[in-house]
This record gives sequence, structure tokens and C-alpha cells, in this order.
Amino acid sequence: MYVIKHTDAPITSMSGIRHTTLAGSGQGLRQLSVWQQSVQPGGATPPHRHDCEEVVLCTGGQGELRIDNRETHGFGPGSTVIIPRNVLHQIASVGTEDLQFVAIFSTTPVEAYFPDGGFIELPWAS
Amino acid sequence: MYVIKHTDAPITSMSGIRHTTLAGSGQGLRQLSVWQQSVQPGGATPPHRHDCEEVVLCTGGQGELRIDNRETHGFGPGSTVIIPRNVLHQIASVGTEDLQFVAIFSTTPVEAYFPDGGFIELPWAS
Repeated sequence: MYVIKHTDAPITSMSGIRHTTLAGSGQGLRQLSVWQQSVQPGGATPPHRHDCEEVVLCTGGQGELRIDNRETHGFGPGSTVIIPRNVLHQIASVGTEDLQFVAIFSTTPVEAYFPDGGFIELPWAS
Repeated sequence: MYVIKHTDAPITSMSGIRHTTLAGSGQGLRQLSVWQQSVQPGGATPPHRHDCEEVVLCTGGQGELRIDNRETHGFGPGSTVIIPRNVLHQIASVGTEDLQFVAIFSTTPVEAYFPDGGFIELPWAS
């Protein structure tokens, strides 16, 4: 299975985040996951962290990266966002259109944790 | 350095391939590289392999993935291409417009090898 159409991948939603896993352990990978997500204006991921590296490529809308509840960085299409391993972060949709992005992780499946260390149950194959 | 504009990343060319490294060891990563490339119609990468996993997201044009000189798979925008570790492959631009894609690797820096095992000297920070 070398080529997969995005339209063949299931779409899941959680807390206003629309999610598609484009690639990961379900596609035979061992060290990469690639997600496509969109977030409605005013929405945001919960603050969370991953035990892996993450790169976000923005494809639409306007986003705000909140790091460890202390600093924020705006981003939009044509921006690459780098999130080092275990850095607490939140991604918010701050424009008038859905924030759209691809999130890339250096592991698969991806696990996510709340700031208190609690495990986040993701509703999608990650 | 959490947010990088694509326009701040240098563009390099090799054999008709226009390349930008969006993220990798130069941006502090240890296990991910993300490249943006475009290939003119009729152009192609050389047949090569990597000692890591690769995922390609097509954003424009029409591509053909050639695996180990024996099978081919067409792809276009809205397709995800999965290339397992060490699988010999070639990506060709077979449409009338430039093939555009993002290539994601499970290591950084990325090394590439010719079919005979020879090391490919990449002209970009990978």
C-alpha cells in the first residue's frame, strides 16, 4: 500500500477538532504519524504534550501556538511550527476561517498528555 | 524558534528539483525532517533509497512513484505516499504542471543512496 487517497481515510471529531490520520501505524509505519486537522474559529486543542517531536504545517486559517501558558506565537499558511519533545503546547484557531494544518510526529501511534500528566484518550487511530 | 516562515528558508536546486528544507536538524529537531519540493514536468528524482521512513503529501501536479524499477503508482493532490525504510524508489513529475509535494522523514539529517549503495551528496541542509 504505497498510495492512499485522503478521501479513503476516516474523519473523526473531538471537541471541535476535525481529524484525519493520513499516515501512521495503521499504514505500516513505525516512526512517523501524519495527521490532518481543522479547528473552527474560536476553538483550540487542550493544552497538552507529546513524548515525541512535532512539526505543524499550516494550510489555511490563522493559528496561535501557546507554549507552556506563558508565550504565544501566531502562524498562518506558509508557516512551519516546531514543537520539541515534551513541550506543553496548545493550538488555537484565531482567524475568521477554520484553521487547517498537517501535524507530523516522530512516533506512531502518538500519545498525548494533559499538563498534569493524565493520558488523553484520542478517539482516532493515531 | 517555534514558528518559521517558509519564505525564510533557503531554496536550493538539484537536477531540476527545487527544494526547501522546512524543518530538520537545523531547526533543532532530532528525529524529523520535512522538505518541500517541486519537479518540472518530465523531471524525476534519481532512483534512491533512505535508511528511514518517508511520507509524501502531494500538493500539486501529478506524480508517479516507481518502486524498485518494477511497479508504478500514480498520485496527485489529496494523496499520501508511504515509502518504507530502505525501499528503492523514484518520484517522477508526469503531469503538465510542476509536481509539488512535502516529503517527511523519520530522521534528520536525511541521507540518500543510489541503487548501488553509493552516497548521494545532497546540496541542501537535510
